[in-house]
Amino acid sequence: MIDFNRNPASYHHWQLEIDGDVAQLRMNVDPEHPYRPGYELKLNSYDLGVDMELADAIQRLRFEHPSVKVVVVGSAQERAFCAGANIWMLADSTHPFKVNFCKYTNETRLSLEDASRNSGLKSICAVNAACAGGGYELALACDEIHLVDDSNSAVSLPEVPLLGVLPGTGGLTRLVDKRKVRRDRADVFCTMAEGMRGKKAVAWGLVDATWKKSQFAERVQARAKELAATLPNKAQKGIALLPIRPKVDGTSYTYTHVKLEVEPGSRKAVLTVQGPRGPQPKNGADYEQAGCSAWALQCYRELDDALLQLRFGHEEVGLVVLHTRGDRAAIVQVEKDLVQNRSHWLCNEILLQMARTLRRWDLMARSMYALVDDAACCAGAFFEMTIGCDRVYMLDSDQVSVAIGPLSDGALPMSHGLTRLQNRFLAQPAHGSKLAKEQPTLSALEADEQGLCTYLLDPVDWTDDVRIALEERASLSPDALTGMEASLRFGGAENCDSKIFGRLSAWQNWIFTRPNATGDEGALTRYGAPESAKFDWRRT
Amino acid sequence: MIDFNRNPASYHHWQLEIDGDVAQLRMNVDPEHPYRPGYELKLNSYDLGVDMELADAIQRLRFEHPSVKVVVVGSAQERAFCAGANIWMLADSTHPFKVNFCKYTNETRLSLEDASRNSGLKSICAVNAACAGGGYELALACDEIHLVDDSNSAVSLPEVPLLGVLPGTGGLTRLVDKRKVRRDRADVFCTMAEGMRGKKAVAWGLVDATWKKSQFAERVQARAKELAATLPNKAQKGIALLPIRPKVDGTSYTYTHVKLEVEPGSRKAVLTVQGPRGPQPKNGADYEQAGCSAWALQCYRELDDALLQLRFGHEEVGLVVLHTRGDRAAIVQVEKDLVQNRSHWLCNEILLQMARTLRRWDLMARSMYALVDDAACCAGAFFEMTIGCDRVYMLDSDQVSVAIGPLSDGALPMSHGLTRLQNRFLAQPAHGSKLAKEQPTLSALEADEQGLCTYLLDPVDWTDDVRIALEERASLSPDALTGMEASLRFGGAENCDSKIFGRLSAWQNWIFTRPNATGDEGALTRYGAPESAKFDWRRT
Repeated sequence: MIDFNRNPASYHHWQLEIDGDVAQLRMNVDPEHPYRPGYELKLNSYDLGVDMELADAIQRLRFEHPSVKVVVVGSAQERAFCAGANIWMLADSTHPFKVNFCKYTNETRLSLEDASRNSGLKSICAVNAACAGGGYELALACDEIHLVDDSNSAVSLPEVPLLGVLPGTGGLTRLVDKRKVRRDRADVFCTMAEGMRGKKAVAWGLVDATWKKSQFAERVQARAKELAATLPNKAQKGIALLPIRPKVDGTSYTYTHVKLEVEPGSRKAVLTVQGPRGPQPKNGADYEQAGCSAWALQCYRELDDALLQLRFGHEEVGLVVLHTRGDRAAIVQVEKDLVQNRSHWLCNEILLQMARTLRRWDLMARSMYALVDDAACCAGAFFEMTIGCDRVYMLDSDQVSVAIGPLSDGALPMSHGLTRLQNRFLAQPAHGSKLAKEQPTLSALEADEQGLCTYLLDPVDWTDDVRIALEERASLSPDALTGMEASLRFGGAENCDSKIFGRLSAWQNWIFTRPNATGDEGALTRYGAPESAKFDWRRT
Repeated sequence: MIDFNRNPASYHHWQLEIDGDVAQLRMNVDPEHPYRPGYELKLNSYDLGVDMELADAIQRLRFEHPSVKVVVVGSAQERAFCAGANIWMLADSTHPFKVNFCKYTNETRLSLEDASRNSGLKSICAVNAACAGGGYELALACDEIHLVDDSNSAVSLPEVPLLGVLPGTGGLTRLVDKRKVRRDRADVFCTMAEGMRGKKAVAWGLVDATWKKSQFAERVQARAKELAATLPNKAQKGIALLPIRPKVDGTSYTYTHVKLEVEPGSRKAVLTVQGPRGPQPKNGADYEQAGCSAWALQCYRELDDALLQLRFGHEEVGLVVLHTRGDRAAIVQVEKDLVQNRSHWLCNEILLQMARTLRRWDLMARSMYALVDDAACCAGAFFEMTIGCDRVYMLDSDQVSVAIGPLSDGALPMSHGLTRLQNRFLAQPAHGSKLAKEQPTLSALEADEQGLCTYLLDPVDWTDDVRIALEERASLSPDALTGMEASLRFGGAENCDSKIFGRLSAWQNWIFTRPNATGDEGALTRYGAPESAKFDWRRT
């Protein structure tokens, strides 16, 4: 099991300091604490372990320190803001690990943007020294970038010239789509190993401001306070996030509300999510009292962890089978209470956590089939998970019903901005809206008529048909399925986030498999070696 | 040199028949005439040569037969509508060829959709028999798909289950984005080797209608006539398209208005486009009289051919250096006359041809640098080509000027629907609009101030700076540049076309390089062999 739990008290690589409504989050990577042995994390370069701490820090700012309005992301090292992802770690990693590492760091950066958009938590990047590659990609995810003007410190994306790969953690996309840097300037910048500094970096839109070294710290802090002062007041007291610890038995992970059972032989995993048991908080005050043990928070944090276990620990699993369990009415009631109390910071944060987890679900590079049988609880966000699957198999039985809840009308958007109902009914937008507004509870037959299941199966066929369906899926080319699912799952719309996952990541995956990057003579492999890379020059 | 010229009189694979306002375009692939030896084109499967004829037929319908309002795309073979791209050809091709072949067939299909949108030429696909893979992707590019109901003929996308690759010629994207097929149904359909037929194919939105075999031909023809009757009247007489034949000298291609000089040693190509010499047609009647020799048509047809020579014949060229030559005022005058006479079918067609050629330019997987020196003619569509480049190097000289013409305001959209000025000035949309509306002529200094050049170079620096810039570019990893350029060139918007080139193609490129598809035991390699494919099951 991979332990994704982190805690500021035992961070190796970051320092988190809260001062009223401004927080300082300083990178100070310990070179001697790589995620796995074999490389040193020099110059604030990062690996999965460093990014786990960053993800943890953002979560804690949201839940434990809701008073914070501005987080200043900086470095505690004089010589480097951040040198980006550690190159020796990358060169030494398998293709699946590289891809999953990039996806995780992408999701971490997106969570920072999500906090800015939806939690009133703005971020300022204080680039006090050299800021390269993934370091600048982290900066790009912040709302503002302030660069020290010391005739030395530059921001740069040197991946193309130095490594023969892309700035694939959102870099290229955020340059032109988020910061709207002129395309020819972006082209120059991305091929310039030395990067850009000072006034020119400001003029090109690569950073927002630049300050002399002597004034830098002071100016950034002044700006943070100024920005905080413009933001609405926030709650003063947060809740504690306790670690998520499943019981692990072989390849089964049992959490309180989630169970993940990996069957390595069939390359299948069964994921079971369980609705609330017992009384749940009704309003913000109740939720504050319940803390992280409330079902709505605990369940989706557990789900998040389970999805990451699957990604990093079980690459051979091609198919996730979703089971939903619990009481439909109880789920819908929890969701109604959360929506009604969304003006309360914690209800809002819990809804945002659910939305992020469901986006992580949509982005699993595994086939996902939902089985809606007699025992299923296809309600509310579990209904969202169900139609987030590639297919829905439903049993034609009186016991089965489907309850669309209040979160299906916009509270849980997909990466490309559409709701799952909008995305499902691109051809009938009015139908999707109607379901979202009316939030009906439907029988299996009605659900089928309303377009909510892929196959409605007779009880006598269920066992065999499902078994065959699962076997068939698990027999197909894993690469072709990844490309197919990435194309079919997200229709009709596009934004910066979905361009990062759909376009930039696809190109990066391609480049990672090319000998020009990762072959024996490739640029990534040969980085730092005396011989320079040798390229197959054919363009495609 | 590759000869892209084709002529209906000598087609090997298609039959084109015109009857008033309806044309029949029937696929009848000669198995014995593959584009290169080594495979047979059975069951109307296609290769580059087959697609060249299709591209030619669409061009001739536009220019030679403007009276045609509806083209029925069918098959002259009883047993197959089309079996898709020939698998043995694909399995036997290099990676760069596969990618370029897919791009070319994509562009051909897009030209059919462009004709529907902009030329009043609608298309009906008459699927009289089995229609698989690229065959169905061709059908998807048509406005309507009619399928014979003979309890046998199906439409299918069997790439994933049979070959371990994607339906990468627009298939996946058009399913969910154009036809808006429900994502779970699209998932089922794309993993079903046998495909789908009859009423279910209609119900799922895979085809628009299905007719019994005995009525099929009659029903389709009746629908074609009915559709034609609803469309506005068109011109009766077209112009002849003569072949495009450069003089080839080593690796230099000299056309009338275009010159392509490939320098294999430096992996560089110099592309020179030349404005009109002598009087040009002023209006539609003049253009009809001039036929295909008019500069505005000839120049861009030549450019189209040159770009294809570069793609297919010179894979090692990493950098295209653009030179524009000619008289600025003459170019702008031609463009003004074309825009003013756009209601004339031929002026419209010429403008559409220019737009398509410029989109092919944007989609070159080569770096493109424009050199705007004393001799340059950076005007009108040549200005569009210039800012379509990754970088613009401009000489700071009184001799240099830049003339924005009438086509920069929407007549030449990029693949993702934006004009090149909109795409360049994402951060300053008002500035882009102003330039497009006012169409100023600017000095080099002014052009720089207005954000139109990347580097304004002093005459004393010009030669050295340009030489170094070209050398530097040509030294970078060709794969990283391809991914970088695909990401930076198209900002801020997305549509079905750009998803095909940006997302679907990127995934397909990745899959084409994976052992699971093209390795010795991969699914594409082993198709038709007694042993089935062996997969590395790790998902990414």
